Amino acid sequence: MRRIRFTLSYDGSAYSGWQVQPGLSTVQGILEAALSRIEGHPVKVHGSGRTDAGVHALAQVAACDLYNPIPPANLQRALNRLLPPDIRVIALTEANLQFHPRHHALAKTYRYRIHRQPVCPPFDRLYVWQHPFPLDEARMALAAALFEGTHDFRAFTATDDRYTPDTDMRRTVFRSHLFRDGDLLIYEVRGSGFLKHMVRNLAGALIELGCGNLTEADLKQMQQTGIRHKGIRTLPPQGLFLVSVEYAPEP
Amino acid sequence: MRRIRFTLSYDGSAYSGWQVQPGLSTVQGILEAALSRIEGHPVKVHGSGRTDAGVHALAQVAACDLYNPIPPANLQRALNRLLPPDIRVIALTEANLQFHPRHHALAKTYRYRIHRQPVCPPFDRLYVWQHPFPLDEARMALAAALFEGTHDFRAFTATDDRYTPDTDMRRTVFRSHLFRDGDLLIYEVRGSGFLKHMVRNLAGALIELGCGNLTEADLKQMQQTGIRHKGIRTLPPQGLFLVSVEYAPEP
Repeated sequence: MRRIRFTLSYDGSAYSGWQVQPGLSTVQGILEAALSRIEGHPVKVHGSGRTDAGVHALAQVAACDLYNPIPPANLQRALNRLLPPDIRVIALTEANLQFHPRHHALAKTYRYRIHRQPVCPPFDRLYVWQHPFPLDEARMALAAALFEGTHDFRAFTATDDRYTPDTDMRRTVFRSHLFRDGDLLIYEVRGSGFLKHMVRNLAGALIELGCGNLTEADLKQMQQTGIRHKGIRTLPPQGLFLVSVEYAPEP
Repeated sequence: MRRIRFTLSYDGSAYSGWQVQPGLSTVQGILEAALSRIEGHPVKVHGSGRTDAGVHALAQVAACDLYNPIPPANLQRALNRLLPPDIRVIALTEANLQFHPRHHALAKTYRYRIHRQPVCPPFDRLYVWQHPFPLDEARMALAAALFEGTHDFRAFTATDDRYTPDTDMRRTVFRSHLFRDGDLLIYEVRGSGFLKHMVRNLAGALIELGCGNLTEADLKQMQQTGIRHKGIRTLPPQGLFLVSVEYAPEP
């Protein structure tokens, strides 16, 4: 048996997220079906983490175990032939048998794309959230750094089956910054790990601050008390991209 | 009555082309429906020319007549609210009552996008034609200029109801060139007007030359005899963009 590590790029528009769910089309489900066809028996795929319905990935990392001796380059080609064109395997290698895409991830980077013009180009419509209204972008850019460091982010997450009252919701954010790329305002965040909806809530909190509905003190208070401010919106999924997942080099 | 001129950007993926066709969803049909709702009676839209099913536009130009006195900025907003997000009005002005988007067009520019890598990013899949196989791109770039000038392009068109044996198929190509933009090989052509499938056939002829299936002499012969070489492929529509339509400045 060998462990295969692959890097995936996908357009999340058509999928109910990463994770297999009965009766729904998911990225993990589509991948498992393609790998199972190649392997000739059911194959289980592990990802670096879930992405929500409608969220995209430039480079999600996943792994599976195979007995099939097909060389990596051929396996990548075979998979890309079986997968729909909105899911692509962009890299595929043999990994250490201990490699686990979630447990061994050291950092992840996400990007949230906000289109700032009144008319959103049709070719961007599935890959941005359009917000053409006034925002104090300079103030937002300064406030973005408040999220850096190790904090309890429970005020910025969603309720979920996987969370109990005892769940440790501390996460470390290495970098949290906002920048302009033409008509796009981009919020980029790199951290040790992220809670459910966390990036969409952090970006949403910055939007409320940019609108003047929240202050820097409100953001700090949310981090300290863990109580969500009622004004925070979870921004819609189509603006969010999982950009990369980082691992230690293999020994 | 006043004449309205508008510039449209659309993702052609979901449409059976520009032109109204009974029972099919077309860009012109969708526009006419939206304008008719605003005007309160049927409105006819004239475009600078047709685009085929699946072909995109960065800036198609069209016009219509309205009695409604709504100011241009409000009309643009109202239209964009009624139109689906894959069709956007990116500019809208009052035009001279004589303005006709097809008759008065002086030049049009099209771009055909060819993705040259074995793995096509999911976000590009609807906007390129993927061709990862060997091509002599330098030879293609030189040959592209052969199409420049005034020629009879009947060897590079498709049969169509609108063409009779007497149809004048001479067109003037001002510029025909090929260039690289990262993983994309782009064929860009600017001309006085284009026949049905002409750009997709010109690009297809260059591909056959780049593969070694045709020579420069074959291309010249096609231009002289008007007889289509059997090896020419009409490249698929999703790689094609109408980039711009040029007019004389209004007096």
